[in-house]
Amino acid sequence: MAGGVKVYGVAASPFVATVLVCLEEAGADYELVAVDMAARENRSQHHLARNPFGKIPAFEDGELTLFESRAISRYVLRKYSRMDLLGEEGDGDLEGSAMADVWAEVEAHQYSPAISNIVRECVIKQMIGAGGRNQAVVDENVERLGKVLDAYEQRLSESEYLAGRLVTVADLSHFGFTWFLMATEYASLVESRANVKAWWERLLARPAVKKVAALMPGGVTTG
Amino acid sequence: MAGGVKVYGVAASPFVATVLVCLEEAGADYELVAVDMAARENRSQHHLARNPFGKIPAFEDGELTLFESRAISRYVLRKYSRMDLLGEEGDGDLEGSAMADVWAEVEAHQYSPAISNIVRECVIKQMIGAGGRNQAVVDENVERLGKVLDAYEQRLSESEYLAGRLVTVADLSHFGFTWFLMATEYASLVESRANVKAWWERLLARPAVKKVAALMPGGVTTG
Repeated sequence: MAGGVKVYGVAASPFVATVLVCLEEAGADYELVAVDMAARENRSQHHLARNPFGKIPAFEDGELTLFESRAISRYVLRKYSRMDLLGEEGDGDLEGSAMADVWAEVEAHQYSPAISNIVRECVIKQMIGAGGRNQAVVDENVERLGKVLDAYEQRLSESEYLAGRLVTVADLSHFGFTWFLMATEYASLVESRANVKAWWERLLARPAVKKVAALMPGGVTTG
Repeated sequence: MAGGVKVYGVAASPFVATVLVCLEEAGADYELVAVDMAARENRSQHHLARNPFGKIPAFEDGELTLFESRAISRYVLRKYSRMDLLGEEGDGDLEGSAMADVWAEVEAHQYSPAISNIVRECVIKQMIGAGGRNQAVVDENVERLGKVLDAYEQRLSESEYLAGRLVTVADLSHFGFTWFLMATEYASLVESRANVKAWWERLLARPAVKKVAALMPGGVTTG
């Protein structure tokens, strides 16, 4: 597959997982090239040439090199003509694409900042042997995520998906971190909200999501 | 202008300022509707109906209501057919739009998290009477922003703008916070890097940017 689509990273990264879900939704052929974070391979000159900030995922499609998971996801969906997953019901559907953009930004700036702290403290730290859980950080972010999910519960009482009646990248981008949250005692944040719970179950039922979930750690919690 | 394009917020918000720059670049007619943050008008039912997270800006175009500044900006540029500012040199230019997306994400996830802390401590707190500067927070984020700007300096040695040879929303979205930074002693972070400094001066020379800058506070620093 030299010269084809390559994703540099590991499926256990929530950011990589979202890119993989988009590739699977698009039916793309791709290769996942492991980056050994423990050996700081992400700080190697090879990887820094792909992403000057040393993060994963990085992405190649022939001569084109990209980074930042949300930018990669949009490129993949455009390339494989899955404009529906970018919110467009028809050519140049400005309102549909705007609503997908709005809720993708909500994921980036409201949801992820809260859930990522919970997942780091309760799951990732143990996975990579980085010490114990800081419960104060967890508690603060559980409260913060609860308020965000209250707005989601309202939104999802009005439409099946965040951007409207179509599933879009705005929904799919929640997969990685939520997958790990659901393996902790804070799964109740999702399970206690009927519309959020039904939305999460609809996402989990998608073949593309199932395929990527099978690549991810089952999730372990620290006590 | 009832039913036209309305931006809810104040130009002094860096997030509102970016939306205004995009509207000015697009040559759009719009109305800026003040939201009194000191009176917590952003938490009013009226405003929460526009943005359930109670932030500014919110945006209306006739019946369509949007929030999240980066989503609003993209909608505006699409509506007024400024696809060049979204990175597209020609119809469906996948590579161009991908590069604009990548650097817009860098702004959101690398640049803003650092610069926003500096601007809050050195400018915003004094502007709204929210207490003194926390110098430890400033110092940490000056170091962080410096590393980010080292990557920008390299990138801007290869191309005139972040996404390539075209100015895009990825550049314009830096305006609000950088405007305030340049009024502090940390302007040297920009001025000490020749390519970053030249890029900032090119942005400031744009008529759309000049027009919005005239609406913003001159910037004051706390000692």
